[in-house]
Amino acid sequence: MNLIPSRPVYIRSWGSVVGKKEYEGPLGRQFDSHDVTDTFGKDTFEKTEAEMQRLALDAALAKGKYRPADITALFAGDLVNQCIASHYGLLPFAIPFVGLFGACSTAAEGLMLSSLLTGAYANRCASVTSSHFCTAERQFRYPLEYGGQRPPTAQWTVTGAGAFVCTSVREDFREYTGTYLPRIMDVMPGRMVDGGINDANNMGAAMAPAALDTLDRYFANGHKPEEFDLIVTGDLGREGSAILGDLSEAKHLGITEKLTDCGKRIYDMETSDIHAGGSGCGCSAVVLAAELLGGIADGTLRDILFVGTGALMNSMSLYQGQTIPGIAHAVHIRGEAKV
Amino acid sequence: MNLIPSRPVYIRSWGSVVGKKEYEGPLGRQFDSHDVTDTFGKDTFEKTEAEMQRLALDAALAKGKYRPADITALFAGDLVNQCIASHYGLLPFAIPFVGLFGACSTAAEGLMLSSLLTGAYANRCASVTSSHFCTAERQFRYPLEYGGQRPPTAQWTVTGAGAFVCTSVREDFREYTGTYLPRIMDVMPGRMVDGGINDANNMGAAMAPAALDTLDRYFANGHKPEEFDLIVTGDLGREGSAILGDLSEAKHLGITEKLTDCGKRIYDMETSDIHAGGSGCGCSAVVLAAELLGGIADGTLRDILFVGTGALMNSMSLYQGQTIPGIAHAVHIRGEAKV
Repeated sequence: MNLIPSRPVYIRSWGSVVGKKEYEGPLGRQFDSHDVTDTFGKDTFEKTEAEMQRLALDAALAKGKYRPADITALFAGDLVNQCIASHYGLLPFAIPFVGLFGACSTAAEGLMLSSLLTGAYANRCASVTSSHFCTAERQFRYPLEYGGQRPPTAQWTVTGAGAFVCTSVREDFREYTGTYLPRIMDVMPGRMVDGGINDANNMGAAMAPAALDTLDRYFANGHKPEEFDLIVTGDLGREGSAILGDLSEAKHLGITEKLTDCGKRIYDMETSDIHAGGSGCGCSAVVLAAELLGGIADGTLRDILFVGTGALMNSMSLYQGQTIPGIAHAVHIRGEAKV
Repeated sequence: MNLIPSRPVYIRSWGSVVGKKEYEGPLGRQFDSHDVTDTFGKDTFEKTEAEMQRLALDAALAKGKYRPADITALFAGDLVNQCIASHYGLLPFAIPFVGLFGACSTAAEGLMLSSLLTGAYANRCASVTSSHFCTAERQFRYPLEYGGQRPPTAQWTVTGAGAFVCTSVREDFREYTGTYLPRIMDVMPGRMVDGGINDANNMGAAMAPAALDTLDRYFANGHKPEEFDLIVTGDLGREGSAILGDLSEAKHLGITEKLTDCGKRIYDMETSDIHAGGSGCGCSAVVLAAELLGGIADGTLRDILFVGTGALMNSMSLYQGQTIPGIAHAVHIRGEAKV
């Protein structure tokens, strides 16, 4: 079932922070800030990722001229064990905090909860999420120094953090410079779906069936694909996107032409050495917080369905013979004319 | 700020599943099910914990005569890396799923979100959380086989899973056997508070300042301690509870006589070898899902403030020289006469 915020909810401001590879990609200039050293001045990867969350929320708050006390609740999560990037990065804001884990779907999960709470209970809520190539590689795969080979289906974890402030207060847009206001029309929480994949280097295949399940339920629910300029999955990459394309055609969902994927948009898929595309909690977050919301604000995009995708595993579960369930949460965002 | 569900929300049913030590404790007979082998028939600790989540939700659904399709959204989390106990345990229900990480505060966090969404958007939502002594020890401290010494401030991770179904549909209580209906009156999301503790064997001290912060803000907000029969923290244990007592007296909160802690109630603090008391995501969940909601249903308790407490760390963050922030979410539950 899709859920509709009880009153109009808008994304007033957003922030994006990325590393070198992302800055050098096709969307590079659209991000708020970057560090070509990928360290942000910190001495461990985990501290760097935390710092990126702090900077992303800082950017989003600054653009909306918000103080931390204006935010009723903050939703955040990341991929590092026990989500410490979110904790250490967001601790200084002292905003009531709701910790999430949705693997790479966390950006959509946070926006979903943030908009629902803003729609019924709060003036404003915010959400933040992040990933870092180096924290993810050493935790989920191999130490970087080992120099392990990556198969063609492997994705490249995006070094990036994105933050979003939802508001129900129309006056917050007084100094807004965009032409259209990004409004969250409705959201749909996803179900876990296990397609039987047990290869940690093929996350796209693990997530595609979950994306299909959410899209299938969403379009059985009154909405039509024609309403959308783009249906943007989080990080299926080349492999997962192809699978979702095939699965949705077999189901006659009629979405093929609208489908695109943040994991394919963030890097140059031909020249950069990222194999199947970008992934990670930060991937969909920064693409949304730069290209997509930018496009809505200036009117080049009107309706998008943002479908955050996540692979729900850890390295131990694979050693124990488990397969990898996926999940996908959908957020429908529309550009509403600024009157 | 505390948040009040937009319409009346009740906890219709709840389930609790525990291990041997918990079954042998003072609340043993109040739990729905247990396994004296602590394995629940599974060959790894992680699979066991997942199975316990499945059994807990199964018990809660069965008591309310619910099918999975009756639940709009399911909120869950645990302590295992990337929350896999929740994922693998709850996958079979195919309920739209929202993953949480709030360390040991997750039971309160899940109830909070579950009640707010039920209050505005859904007929029913559910929440589940768990912990297992063996998954937690090997992940956060030492392999069990190592037989590490535990200092007096150390707590014992509860082997337990608790599940709760929130409803806004009064007719769901038609076959309810209790005398009073547990109603969620209001909730308050906590802020992260870092008291400078860096000892993974003294979680109580790390969490106590966060509990104080939440209680201080809650009682500055219109509510008075006299309204409550009990103010129940999640798992501060003996050490953390003593610290919270001192801190709240210094602030003249006037709550000392009402304070109690799930981590002290679940075990016999004199005879069982658990040092400072119980802890873990499952600790507060099973005490609430047995003793506390049982007490509300039969009228021995009327108003309780359930304050889930969590220590936000992982083992790596301590190696990197970080201290341990705490968090505490509050849920106010009242027994309402069944008319």
